[in-house]
Amino acid sequence: MGSSKRKRDQLDARDVPKAVVSRLSLYLRELRRLSRSGKATVSSSQLGRLLGFTDAQVRKDLAHFGHFGHPGIGYRCDELVAAVRGILGTDLGWNVAVVGVGDLGRALLGYQGFSSDGFRIVAAFETDQTKVGTSVDGVAVYGLERLANVVHERQIQLAMIAVPASAAQVVAEQLVSAGVLGIVNFAPVTLSLPDGVSLVAVDLATELEQISFAVANRNSSR
Amino acid sequence: MGSSKRKRDQLDARDVPKAVVSRLSLYLRELRRLSRSGKATVSSSQLGRLLGFTDAQVRKDLAHFGHFGHPGIGYRCDELVAAVRGILGTDLGWNVAVVGVGDLGRALLGYQGFSSDGFRIVAAFETDQTKVGTSVDGVAVYGLERLANVVHERQIQLAMIAVPASAAQVVAEQLVSAGVLGIVNFAPVTLSLPDGVSLVAVDLATELEQISFAVANRNSSR
Repeated sequence: MGSSKRKRDQLDARDVPKAVVSRLSLYLRELRRLSRSGKATVSSSQLGRLLGFTDAQVRKDLAHFGHFGHPGIGYRCDELVAAVRGILGTDLGWNVAVVGVGDLGRALLGYQGFSSDGFRIVAAFETDQTKVGTSVDGVAVYGLERLANVVHERQIQLAMIAVPASAAQVVAEQLVSAGVLGIVNFAPVTLSLPDGVSLVAVDLATELEQISFAVANRNSSR
Repeated sequence: MGSSKRKRDQLDARDVPKAVVSRLSLYLRELRRLSRSGKATVSSSQLGRLLGFTDAQVRKDLAHFGHFGHPGIGYRCDELVAAVRGILGTDLGWNVAVVGVGDLGRALLGYQGFSSDGFRIVAAFETDQTKVGTSVDGVAVYGLERLANVVHERQIQLAMIAVPASAAQVVAEQLVSAGVLGIVNFAPVTLSLPDGVSLVAVDLATELEQISFAVANRNSSR
């Protein structure tokens, strides 16, 4: 797969549409499921059908990153899992912090899907002193004033922000100052960060708005 | 705004890229903020700059739905807020259920952003009998066996699934049978639903994968 290697070396995340990267995550989940169920190979049309995409969409998405199919065989599931993990960078392993230990923070700390995916949650931060010093799902909760030290000591590269909207910008700036490279923001507020920091915003109301849009505009006769 | 009216009547959600709808949610938040801060009008380049998009992107996104700008003025903030709410369908108001009252379910029930956005969470469902009959953030928790009745009585149209992955498909089918039209799924599993039901999948690991991709592929020299 020389061509895939060449393409990856040249890859810049900014050249790849976000929707493509989202679909890579879906492909990865489906390929793992197929692999676990004992399936060695899958075609682009089978993979597409399982996820509700066309075979052309599957092929076009993967073509951003190289040539992964084998003529007359399709994709080898294990091989494509490894390739997609390499593209997503989850094969590198990441140390992750959660900031904010309210209901959402606890949900993130208890979420089972992260560790199998290459993400180790190694610390949580909170201003509520009654929570500081405890541990949640095996993860130690530190006071926010220790953030810079702990990020450095535990070599934390990514963080999830689950604090109230009013606190999110300050927390994000502290994370960036401490050297965190990427942030997933769950607070319902738009963060302003330096160019070098990657940011994904998850707004729970936005997800409902997507569904509202789809349901409200389902019929052209509305 | 005759042309905007005409376009909306003809609108079919399937013709609009998901990324456009996601950005509408961002525009709506920023426009509300501007409006609250006393700003009456905004240009496409100002709006874009606040959110990190080009002015062309802003204009192109909105052009899917009609003509909203005024020559020499730009957009009137309140007018565009109302228009975007109309496009997203949040002006219709929706009754929403949360299924699963674990950490994530409680986070959803306590989330402040929904009600201002046209979403009323009117019921929660749970199999744990110690939670049934209680209320969380003012929302009554019902046993899952009462789902069909309560969906009917409370005229629930949308639902958020926050149950373990193993239970999500069964719960989704119960919701669809009961008449729910749109589902936001937080369980880390791909759901298979009939064509008539709108589905948005939120996979928390996916959000981290997006960040992993962006950080891992930041430099072309990787």
